[in-house]
Amino acid sequence: MDFGVSERIETIVSMINEFVERELIPMEPEYLVHDFNEMLPRLREKQAMVKQMGLWAPNFPVECGGMGLSLVEHGLVSEALGRSPLGHFVFWCQAPDAGNVEILHMFGSDVQKQRFLNPLVAGDIRSCFSMTEVDMPGSNPVMLETMAVKDGDDYVINGHKWYTTSADGADFAIVMAVTNPEAPPYLQASMIIVPSDTPGFNIVRNIPVMGHEGNGYGSHAEILYQSCRVPQTNLLGPEGQGFVIAQERLGPGRIHHCMRWLGICKRAFDLMCKRANERVIAPNGKTLATRQIIQGWIAESAAEMEAARLMTLHAAWQIDNVGAAKARDSISMIKFVVANTMNRIVDRALQVHGGLGMTDDTILAYFYRHERAARIYDGADEVHKTSLAKRILRSYEGREVR
Amino acid sequence: MDFGVSERIETIVSMINEFVERELIPMEPEYLVHDFNEMLPRLREKQAMVKQMGLWAPNFPVECGGMGLSLVEHGLVSEALGRSPLGHFVFWCQAPDAGNVEILHMFGSDVQKQRFLNPLVAGDIRSCFSMTEVDMPGSNPVMLETMAVKDGDDYVINGHKWYTTSADGADFAIVMAVTNPEAPPYLQASMIIVPSDTPGFNIVRNIPVMGHEGNGYGSHAEILYQSCRVPQTNLLGPEGQGFVIAQERLGPGRIHHCMRWLGICKRAFDLMCKRANERVIAPNGKTLATRQIIQGWIAESAAEMEAARLMTLHAAWQIDNVGAAKARDSISMIKFVVANTMNRIVDRALQVHGGLGMTDDTILAYFYRHERAARIYDGADEVHKTSLAKRILRSYEGREVR
Amino acid sequence: MDFGVSERIETIVSMINEFVERELIPMEPEYLVHDFNEMLPRLREKQAMVKQMGLWAPNFPVECGGMGLSLVEHGLVSEALGRSPLGHFVFWCQAPDAGNVEILHMFGSDVQKQRFLNPLVAGDIRSCFSMTEVDMPGSNPVMLETMAVKDGDDYVINGHKWYTTSADGADFAIVMAVTNPEAPPYLQASMIIVPSDTPGFNIVRNIPVMGHEGNGYGSHAEILYQSCRVPQTNLLGPEGQGFVIAQERLGPGRIHHCMRWLGICKRAFDLMCKRANERVIAPNGKTLATRQIIQGWIAESAAEMEAARLMTLHAAWQIDNVGAAKARDSISMIKFVVANTMNRIVDRALQVHGGLGMTDDTILAYFYRHERAARIYDGADEVHKTSLAKRILRSYEGREVR
Amino acid sequence: MDFGVSERIETIVSMINEFVERELIPMEPEYLVHDFNEMLPRLREKQAMVKQMGLWAPNFPVECGGMGLSLVEHGLVSEALGRSPLGHFVFWCQAPDAGNVEILHMFGSDVQKQRFLNPLVAGDIRSCFSMTEVDMPGSNPVMLETMAVKDGDDYVINGHKWYTTSADGADFAIVMAVTNPEAPPYLQASMIIVPSDTPGFNIVRNIPVMGHEGNGYGSHAEILYQSCRVPQTNLLGPEGQGFVIAQERLGPGRIHHCMRWLGICKRAFDLMCKRANERVIAPNGKTLATRQIIQGWIAESAAEMEAARLMTLHAAWQIDNVGAAKARDSISMIKFVVANTMNRIVDRALQVHGGLGMTDDTILAYFYRHERAARIYDGADEVHKTSLAKRILRSYEGREVR
Repeated sequence: MDFGVSERIETIVSMINEFVERELIPMEPEYLVHDFNEMLPRLREKQAMVKQMGLWAPNFPVECGGMGLSLVEHGLVSEALGRSPLGHFVFWCQAPDAGNVEILHMFGSDVQKQRFLNPLVAGDIRSCFSMTEVDMPGSNPVMLETMAVKDGDDYVINGHKWYTTSADGADFAIVMAVTNPEAPPYLQASMIIVPSDTPGFNIVRNIPVMGHEGNGYGSHAEILYQSCRVPQTNLLGPEGQGFVIAQERLGPGRIHHCMRWLGICKRAFDLMCKRANERVIAPNGKTLATRQIIQGWIAESAAEMEAARLMTLHAAWQIDNVGAAKARDSISMIKFVVANTMNRIVDRALQVHGGLGMTDDTILAYFYRHERAARIYDGADEVHKTSLAKRILRSYEGREVR
Repeated sequence: MDFGVSERIETIVSMINEFVERELIPMEPEYLVHDFNEMLPRLREKQAMVKQMGLWAPNFPVECGGMGLSLVEHGLVSEALGRSPLGHFVFWCQAPDAGNVEILHMFGSDVQKQRFLNPLVAGDIRSCFSMTEVDMPGSNPVMLETMAVKDGDDYVINGHKWYTTSADGADFAIVMAVTNPEAPPYLQASMIIVPSDTPGFNIVRNIPVMGHEGNGYGSHAEILYQSCRVPQTNLLGPEGQGFVIAQERLGPGRIHHCMRWLGICKRAFDLMCKRANERVIAPNGKTLATRQIIQGWIAESAAEMEAARLMTLHAAWQIDNVGAAKARDSISMIKFVVANTMNRIVDRALQVHGGLGMTDDTILAYFYRHERAARIYDGADEVHKTSLAKRILRSYEGREVR
Repeated sequence: MDFGVSERIETIVSMINEFVERELIPMEPEYLVHDFNEMLPRLREKQAMVKQMGLWAPNFPVECGGMGLSLVEHGLVSEALGRSPLGHFVFWCQAPDAGNVEILHMFGSDVQKQRFLNPLVAGDIRSCFSMTEVDMPGSNPVMLETMAVKDGDDYVINGHKWYTTSADGADFAIVMAVTNPEAPPYLQASMIIVPSDTPGFNIVRNIPVMGHEGNGYGSHAEILYQSCRVPQTNLLGPEGQGFVIAQERLGPGRIHHCMRWLGICKRAFDLMCKRANERVIAPNGKTLATRQIIQGWIAESAAEMEAARLMTLHAAWQIDNVGAAKARDSISMIKFVVANTMNRIVDRALQVHGGLGMTDDTILAYFYRHERAARIYDGADEVHKTSLAKRILRSYEGREVR
Repeated sequence: MDFGVSERIETIVSMINEFVERELIPMEPEYLVHDFNEMLPRLREKQAMVKQMGLWAPNFPVECGGMGLSLVEHGLVSEALGRSPLGHFVFWCQAPDAGNVEILHMFGSDVQKQRFLNPLVAGDIRSCFSMTEVDMPGSNPVMLETMAVKDGDDYVINGHKWYTTSADGADFAIVMAVTNPEAPPYLQASMIIVPSDTPGFNIVRNIPVMGHEGNGYGSHAEILYQSCRVPQTNLLGPEGQGFVIAQERLGPGRIHHCMRWLGICKRAFDLMCKRANERVIAPNGKTLATRQIIQGWIAESAAEMEAARLMTLHAAWQIDNVGAAKARDSISMIKFVVANTMNRIVDRALQVHGGLGMTDDTILAYFYRHERAARIYDGADEVHKTSLAKRILRSYEGREVR
């Protein structure tokens, strides 16, 4: 066992920490009141700096123009970036593009790579991933109503999606649609690349989430696919393998999310400690930091953060070393453990700030309302808990236990 | 002991329930995307209907033009109104005006009543309450920096306040300011009425709270009092009695809040049950309602709501029957119990709605982000817990316990 | 609404409080190290005192020799008695006899009343209730394997029961056995009175519970019914109505338990506050009471106790006024709310006592280990939660909710 | 980073697992009803087997006759042994002897080592550690009343200790006593070796803990030191260094405890899963394992156990690699995290067993009542939380945080 981190990664992480503190955090007040699109020019400038520093696309394969970090290594990077909501986008390892790069790299044809993958890795275009449906539970991926029917050399897609994150302004979507309705449930759907200028690709609205519709990268679209026609060569990977590929996409994706959430934890924790030290609550100069209830929160937050962090790095290490399939239980666990840890720590940090915590004068209220989603997307807590438990319980069947 | 409710109140409550369902809830989608001021004309129409129904200002004394309900009775009304964020405003028993009416009624001079109280009860003007300061902990009322210095027949007020709710558009503020800096801590401050058109009453901004600055009634102002001069006849109650009067204001105010929060609980609970019954999560038609984890949340929510409700009604009954002073422990308890109950139930309801819960397509995301403040204002949970505990512990001193 | 208590009951409760403090609590150290049977003579003396005070059997009907208190009234008595584990036994309103008295009174024939009820109410004999089976889940009453087969004028009973509380030394058992295996599930079982000297009534052992087998009233038996033959006149109530009667028995029984648990809460709370005030933890004389974490526990415990208490009294009031059937939801709620409240408060009180809390030098360790069962018997928490939730969810079906 | 375990340790752990399952768990039913001393002969036989297997004293230095495992390695061994309450004693790495061996090895004179250390490592004698005092808070080590006064060549010790675990039958105690009352608080006390046959070493009683006094190794003594005289050569380490040495003792000791608790977690978890799979709760044969609430507990328990395990191994790795001083925060964290994790998992496992869980027919009720102490000894949760938080808060002072 060795819990040490290589010097190379320590250096990268400290460069990133400094960049986040110096370049990104000062942009946050603007971010909290402006549209994403309005900020884009200034974010592009930061991206140029990142490229120059050689830290572009840390998790993408070297041959695609990324840094080719392992999952453990990228985890540590993602934690540093997660401290600001602008981090991942500026370093170009943001969802949903990161996942799309991964599957295009693994399953894309040469033509697809040239047209979609290369400009995506370069940061010239954006993409989205269109799976969740309005009327169907995201927790049960085999319940899809979107159909892609073959017609000549094309697929004709009809369906109603929502929570297609960042569709507004994306150049293409990877759409999950049923191509083989007669196949067994998990073999019915395929992934199909749909350029966003295809007729029938209709964004109904950017969904108002927690009071804001957002725009551009910072939005979640509701999309109607209305006889949306693309050539069959836009099929990504084998037909009927949509869920299999989606599963590949989710394992590392959860590590990314969890480590990003840990960055949020760290940021909220820092702000909480700072506030506790500074907030005078009595005429004798005593601060919040002298109060045991606050101390209790700080100790519990530190411990929960440490637990969540070790679990996530362990899961990443497992994926790196024995593959995502064998890391399945670990991946399920971190999904609900880290999301809840983050929600609790942000909640405590907000409480320590009192009225200030409710305002947009700190980043905490933003984290509080938007990161609530972490317990829902990519499988709600409850879905992960029950599926994990069922696997565990199955492993005990027929086993002698004293 | 008698847990029954009089027929009169049952009738009133059921009228209000129907009005909320039929007139107010349908306005909510508009409320979630528009400014308060924009909606004002339509809200005025609803207020006119309420007046016609004889349900205007349910908690105000009859002689002021209200219904004169007891605190228990108004609690039940407040619960019904709380189901919609528009309820209290339309029935004209909203904070901070309700509290201001109370103290004007109890402590106002005849001139003050005529000029400020009467039009306020009538709904012709609005008011605000200016106590919380940016740099001072709201939890410790004796730490005030705002000063009112006598100069001729006037007070000259200087200070920096924030979270002066609904100051934007209010006709006057009741300002808490230090008038007697040499007196013992709890006898230093006074309440002074400051018309909002007084020179030196400067609203710096409406504070952005959870992503929105809001406006009009739906806002929280930061205010600089800069040599703001009002006649000494604007003193409300005796000089140096600011905290004593504030304490009077808070007791019943907490009942109002708690019962309003219980209305929010009820609404969130209804939506949660409805969603659980309707959301199909498996191809065989099984709904969320069949899932034990959801059932567990529903049972726990029902029980927590019942507990919070009985405790609040009990506290109201105590205030009605033995006075706020003797009800002090009960009032402290409900403040943190009900606020946390509401936060938990809203959180569960949101989770049961999945991605939909994060959107503004239901009211839940609004409750989630804005009602988080309940654990902070009027004394944070921790302040109530420790002051309650200290009183309890003191009561055990010198007492024989086996 | 009226949360007041009559003067008569206040007097009774304060007499009981004094008796418990003066007569029973001093016997506890002995109770913690001796067998129940060994203490019996001294407990009999206390019972004689109770009879003389006119406080014998407070919940039994006056015509049976009890005080005939309403459920709300007896609830308050039960709370006072619950402060000591000896309280209910000495005042003769202890489970399982209290429930047996109730059903004998409601469903017993005159002969049964004369032979079993009268001496039981008088305190001359004890009884037990034999329902739970080793291999069958107590949570599902329709899964019973014990059979009572008619043979001539008799029933012949075969089956394997356990957790037949207080069977050791009881004069008779009320046994739940299947008499009508072909009937619908809830109409298969009957209650049959089995004198404990009947051949085939074989106590296998007193089950060791939390380290002790106990004996006499303070024990839980495992019983084999082996061709145990009783006359059919020992049938209690109509044949096949066992579950219906059991349901009657459980409603008020849960009030008794819950109010007893509230007595335990009160006792643990008193000890916690006392200890916090007395325990010096720093050379400067500061006590545990000055520590915010302890204060937090005290405030939360006070609030939880108040909530649990109001809910239980409300449920009792409902049973008294509208009947157990309509109080069903309230009864389900209090079962899990009060049991968990008690477990939490005892746990905190123990923690405040540190190492002392683990010893038998206080009553807390006894409460900690033995009252853990409260979350299990009479339906585990989870059973109550899910059945409550299902009823609630059903009530929302077809109902319009906005 | 490397989360892998060496093959050697995997082999050792699997040998121990098998031994525990085959040799020790079958002895537990006897252990639950008999005194420790009564079982001693049979435990001695098992110890002989362990010696023959070469697994004796895994954590003691090789030169003392132990296996010399690192802290991480012994952690994994301790986890395996912790599955049974007999594990550590039989493999001779039990508290308090393990800690005493450590300090005798580090600080003992040659004479002390020969007389006390060697036979202790060999398993020929037992020892105890006498620090906690009845009237003083264990959480504040500088509050000691036991004095050791020099008289000629001797120390004369007077004081009142309790919770001197395993004193009954021990050959010597290491006693913490004030030798330098004028020195600064943390330099007042010394450790002194007191053979148990010294006049004035008076065991008042074995404290009844959770219903049992126990005896021999399985007991906790109250001891009066009454003019107890030992030669000054019995001083262990330098005079006045008692707390410094105690601190050394506690770091690794907490790892041992935490990993033992993780063994208890694993055992309880196994029993819970087994029971869930086997317990039929409906006539259609459905088991508890099909219930989501149970599934939720299993998933949460698995995740909490994983978190606690990684944190403890991380802390052990830190002690092994950078020393106990730098691992201080990690050690504080695991103390409260693992103790609470264990208490929660045992509680859930007990609940899943229903009535059976309350009995001594499984080991769970034993764990439930006795391991409750884990949140108290070696520093209560609250002490660790506040001291950890204070260190963290201090580290933020003067640090720029955005």
